[in-house]
Amino acid sequence: MPMDTRTGLPVVGMIGGGQLARMTHQAAIALGQSLRVLANDVDESAALVAADVQLGSHTDLDALRTFAKSCDVVTFDHEHVPGEHIRALVAAGHKVFPGADALQYAQDKHLMRRRLSELGAPVPRWAPIATAEELVAFGLPAVVKTARGGYDGRGVFVVNDVEEIIDLLASGAELIVEEKVALRRELAVQVARSPYGQVAVYPVVETVQQDGICVEVLAPAPGLPEDVAVGAQELAIRIANELGVVGLLAVELFEVAPDTPGEAPRLVINELAMRPHNSGHWTIEGARTSQFEQHLRAVLDYPMGDTSLAAPAVVMANVLGGPDGGMSIDERLHHLMAAEPGVKVHLYGKQTRPGRKIGHVTALGDDLADCRARAARAGHWLTYGKALES
Amino acid sequence: MPMDTRTGLPVVGMIGGGQLARMTHQAAIALGQSLRVLANDVDESAALVAADVQLGSHTDLDALRTFAKSCDVVTFDHEHVPGEHIRALVAAGHKVFPGADALQYAQDKHLMRRRLSELGAPVPRWAPIATAEELVAFGLPAVVKTARGGYDGRGVFVVNDVEEIIDLLASGAELIVEEKVALRRELAVQVARSPYGQVAVYPVVETVQQDGICVEVLAPAPGLPEDVAVGAQELAIRIANELGVVGLLAVELFEVAPDTPGEAPRLVINELAMRPHNSGHWTIEGARTSQFEQHLRAVLDYPMGDTSLAAPAVVMANVLGGPDGGMSIDERLHHLMAAEPGVKVHLYGKQTRPGRKIGHVTALGDDLADCRARAARAGHWLTYGKALES
Repeated sequence: MPMDTRTGLPVVGMIGGGQLARMTHQAAIALGQSLRVLANDVDESAALVAADVQLGSHTDLDALRTFAKSCDVVTFDHEHVPGEHIRALVAAGHKVFPGADALQYAQDKHLMRRRLSELGAPVPRWAPIATAEELVAFGLPAVVKTARGGYDGRGVFVVNDVEEIIDLLASGAELIVEEKVALRRELAVQVARSPYGQVAVYPVVETVQQDGICVEVLAPAPGLPEDVAVGAQELAIRIANELGVVGLLAVELFEVAPDTPGEAPRLVINELAMRPHNSGHWTIEGARTSQFEQHLRAVLDYPMGDTSLAAPAVVMANVLGGPDGGMSIDERLHHLMAAEPGVKVHLYGKQTRPGRKIGHVTALGDDLADCRARAARAGHWLTYGKALES
Repeated sequence: MPMDTRTGLPVVGMIGGGQLARMTHQAAIALGQSLRVLANDVDESAALVAADVQLGSHTDLDALRTFAKSCDVVTFDHEHVPGEHIRALVAAGHKVFPGADALQYAQDKHLMRRRLSELGAPVPRWAPIATAEELVAFGLPAVVKTARGGYDGRGVFVVNDVEEIIDLLASGAELIVEEKVALRRELAVQVARSPYGQVAVYPVVETVQQDGICVEVLAPAPGLPEDVAVGAQELAIRIANELGVVGLLAVELFEVAPDTPGEAPRLVINELAMRPHNSGHWTIEGARTSQFEQHLRAVLDYPMGDTSLAAPAVVMANVLGGPDGGMSIDERLHHLMAAEPGVKVHLYGKQTRPGRKIGHVTALGDDLADCRARAARAGHWLTYGKALES
């Protein structure tokens, strides 16, 4: 055990140096620790702020082995580490959470759909496809997804005519097709699970998407009937248990209009993520235990923290890189702070690039509409360098 | 300007690598920054977690000059940097907050008492003393303090008989004497002030001391009449303005029984601190803007953040190093988390030594008594490695 002899506490290593590792390091500091980070580059979000950084690629098994030797437990900022590398680390005696058997369901949408179907979990009607004929037989319009490699809307195609994806079909990429559900809105629920088997589930949230990217999260999801919310939490717990997830699991859900008007809405599972997740950034100030601290507790097999809300309404808005507009990020921050002294800012230390997630803002209060307005104004200042016109 | 070209944001340097710098680094991460730290040793609290650490002494002007050159603004984790060094940095064109003219009043109790008396601020009856005769003439019992170098109760002596401090009187140390007030309890109020002159004041808190060390902070101070609380806040703002403080100012107060029973209690000033302060650790979860973020905003001349409470009652308890007791800090943390899933833990990465501040815990809720009980139980677990007997 490379237990940190200076502090008497275990060392958590996170593979990947993005904003999730950056915010996990923040949480680790409170627990008396310092996150060890495997980053590709010194300029990555987490590498800019963490004391203990190893440079190397998440696809380089030698780098992973060296990294794991200096950690008590290894976890992830993303889902791109090959399963065989994770198995090699575990075979060498390292603790890696989540394990490869669980993580495969967040890496491969075909495996995920098949496993969830076996479990009887609610999913859209789906099928694996390899040819245009199979797609036509499934029925159009439909949603075609690559089994591997997609995120933030990449690898997802709404298809009305086979011709639209003829190149993709010819590429040899493994594909699945899903029915285009009568989507009302998107929800998400996060659960943490420890090796001991303790689980802690967060309130269900609404996630607002634009062009396949999450732009806003409302906690708790407004207007969701209590029994539907509890059902979603129970579903997330069941999936975490059945798949053997250790750490955080985010279950992204579609809320579909009920077949019979007046009945409760129906939820179907869209995606799974096994790490801290954009749908949980609101928890930093909005829940008693942030998702980042909870992920650390889970992979360390510590008891889970209280997941209850810290305010009646919490709204998180992502800050995307915007046009240059002649105003520096530092000036934008000044304006935001002057206009919204109660909004919490999180910047990731990233170079601005249009559409790139460079930070997020969180507004808390008693009134959801007020929180949404404040978060939107704050996010707009950081993205565009000017006030949102009302 | 050494503005960080990777992030487009200014670099704040903090002199001193203790827990205040550690928690300031945590706050800096959210603002898109990485605190630059001047630490004596790689094992200091902040050096364990910050990416950007220079080793060197706060009394070495060359080290300070090198440090300041790589920062946009320099501030402090403690009050021990000599005033002439600060003046030398400012003369070389560096921004240093608070400045030497303000900081002297937190470094020298004689200067502080004289200046506060000139301002007409409420202080205990006091006098400078150099001889036993002067002490007797002032009247005993009384409180004798060294003008410089004391903190956490060091350098403070309750004196009933001159013989008790005959060695101190002979030492040549500059001393003051103060009346022993009819102390009911201790309070504190924090205010942040920016170079622009904006101020933001926190709610008045009660600080509970044992052996001269703060062990517990209750926010807001229970049972304090509204007008007395507002008066204390106005006093703190006035002192920050008059002394030209930039950054955080903590005003420690004695609540003294009123001369006439039934009247409002009287407040007199005990000490001043010009940095994030133990009386403000509760703000990390308990206020919308933590004292650490607020200090950064102030020294960066950013607009101040919202200081309002995040819960009706907030209790912070310090965790002091305790007896070994055969249980590691890691095991203690497990027990605490299992027993108190809603209590927030902050460990400073320090080696345990009896009486040393190694961390703190914070409990939030609707009921003060419940928060106190939870914080006490949690603190006891971390200090003693066993449950508090009720």
